[in-house]
Amino acid sequence: MSETTVNRAFRLRKRPNGNLADGDLELVEEEVPELTDGQALVRTELLSLDPTNRIWMSDIRGYMPAVPLGAVMRGLGVGEVIASRRDDMPVGAIVNGFLGWQELCLADDNLLEAPLTVLPDPLPAPLSAFLGALGHTGITAYQGIQLSELKEGETIVISAACGAVGSIAGQIAKQRGARVVGVAGGPEKCRHAVEKLGYDACVDHRADDWREQLAAATPDGVDVDFESVGGPIMDEVLMHLNIGARISLCGMIAEYNTYNDGEGGSGLLNVGQLIMQRATIRGFLVLDYVEHFEEAINHLAGMLGEGKLHYDETIVPGGIEKAPEALGRLFEGSNMGKLLLRVAWD
Amino acid sequence: MSETTVNRAFRLRKRPNGNLADGDLELVEEEVPELTDGQALVRTELLSLDPTNRIWMSDIRGYMPAVPLGAVMRGLGVGEVIASRRDDMPVGAIVNGFLGWQELCLADDNLLEAPLTVLPDPLPAPLSAFLGALGHTGITAYQGIQLSELKEGETIVISAACGAVGSIAGQIAKQRGARVVGVAGGPEKCRHAVEKLGYDACVDHRADDWREQLAAATPDGVDVDFESVGGPIMDEVLMHLNIGARISLCGMIAEYNTYNDGEGGSGLLNVGQLIMQRATIRGFLVLDYVEHFEEAINHLAGMLGEGKLHYDETIVPGGIEKAPEALGRLFEGSNMGKLLLRVAWD
Repeated sequence: MSETTVNRAFRLRKRPNGNLADGDLELVEEEVPELTDGQALVRTELLSLDPTNRIWMSDIRGYMPAVPLGAVMRGLGVGEVIASRRDDMPVGAIVNGFLGWQELCLADDNLLEAPLTVLPDPLPAPLSAFLGALGHTGITAYQGIQLSELKEGETIVISAACGAVGSIAGQIAKQRGARVVGVAGGPEKCRHAVEKLGYDACVDHRADDWREQLAAATPDGVDVDFESVGGPIMDEVLMHLNIGARISLCGMIAEYNTYNDGEGGSGLLNVGQLIMQRATIRGFLVLDYVEHFEEAINHLAGMLGEGKLHYDETIVPGGIEKAPEALGRLFEGSNMGKLLLRVAWD
Repeated sequence: MSETTVNRAFRLRKRPNGNLADGDLELVEEEVPELTDGQALVRTELLSLDPTNRIWMSDIRGYMPAVPLGAVMRGLGVGEVIASRRDDMPVGAIVNGFLGWQELCLADDNLLEAPLTVLPDPLPAPLSAFLGALGHTGITAYQGIQLSELKEGETIVISAACGAVGSIAGQIAKQRGARVVGVAGGPEKCRHAVEKLGYDACVDHRADDWREQLAAATPDGVDVDFESVGGPIMDEVLMHLNIGARISLCGMIAEYNTYNDGEGGSGLLNVGQLIMQRATIRGFLVLDYVEHFEEAINHLAGMLGEGKLHYDETIVPGGIEKAPEALGRLFEGSNMGKLLLRVAWD
């Protein structure tokens, strides 16, 4: 590599107020310094776009520190080692981890928040799967279902039926013999949930009669809610809980764009139902279950291998400059399945 | 007893819209029929006034059916058997249970929602204690702390520090070696919480700086919240949760007066913190833990006997006609400890 290698990176300049706006992130071109011992240079191929990216931009009480102003935006990605002065990451190795919203990541134990993982060679699945079904996304789905103790014959609601996590959670739930009811935006997604993902029913939350649809789809009430949206839909699900219901709270994307100096969203009105139904809300983060990652990945890889796990992905082309715009799709709900950005081509 | 024995009872005429209003309940005088086999007549001495009374008036998805329009208002009380045609409840026996908002209760297995309990003779504690520290109130406190798995050295917030349940929960928590932080309305209650009940600190939620007080009182964050209020205070406590925090959700009195046709209160904004802190909200009802009642009562009676359990009670005089007005005190927060109505005198 020449000394004039240039990296293009998004640095966080301002904490967004509501939707991400121009000027919150700045795309900068920066020269990459020459590698020293213990460093490798990774070229990002695919970037994972997740609701949590928006959390990391806000200076709230999050589960990780907010991205400092001026720093490269935090993000998960997969990429290839293109230069190396460390033995565990030879040139050509494919790695997974916090590569950031940038084209080139200087892998250095002192600089990175978490070590990168070197993926097996040859890859047992398409590269994108390691950010989706076989990555944090799939493991989150698996772990949320585990924590809910979902049993055969119970009814589970999946609040983002066709989302990256929800679509996998729904299929795991179905495999366990539950009645699986999805919630998604628009008839196309609802059809996809039922026909491709195997949901028993799917409620279109953009339809005027979505409350009636939810009631009709859960004639025996709701035993488990795999919740990643929050807002009015979660509030309505609370009104259908059965005694002893469990809510695996994975996310509340409906509120993330309202985060600003610690203020929350529109507010849940029906939390009192937790008392009436002796129900539980359990917030969880996949990063707390590292000791179960192998079990989860084996389970998911098994389902994939048997053709029992369908996964969708929306890969946005156009390179790193498209990252902010692509993230917006999650909040519009205009993507299907896992949302990825293609940063580099081979 | 003569055939002209007259009972005075409150019957529910209208479901309250907000605060209980004139005309929602009607005080009626009704002749008591002659007893048949299997019946006993109980004269109510003390009536327990609880936030849940307000829940029972509303036709919401509650944990018990709403009181039907036209029926005698549901309520717990203690009383004396004054006439009997059943062996298990001789005249003179003191009983505890759903006597209702009335002077005389016809104890009849077919009419009552739950059997009455005959208390031991002689009574091991003052009669009022069987509605308070040694009744559902005390057991609720005990059970809520049990479910929270509170550990020595942790910080617990008790949202109604001087309330019937909260005041006992606080003392159990203190006995377990926790840092116990109360929330109460006004300096008098806060002083009482610290000086009489042994709280480490108490936040006056009527003070302008209550948020700062809460922050100052929980320098190490909040591990457990014993929640019976809901609303903005619970919302603020959510912002102080530690990783792995547990909320024992016992009640949400801040919202009960807003119940009307399924509509909720003002809404919780910070439920997303459950994800960030991997925290749990667990709704519970004491009636689900009948198998632990004996253990709980033994524990509480032991604390009482050793002089380690202080309990406060506010006994409103004036007879059954004062019941609606007395209930209002719970929502104003103008009572200290257990709120009781004296219905009859010996």
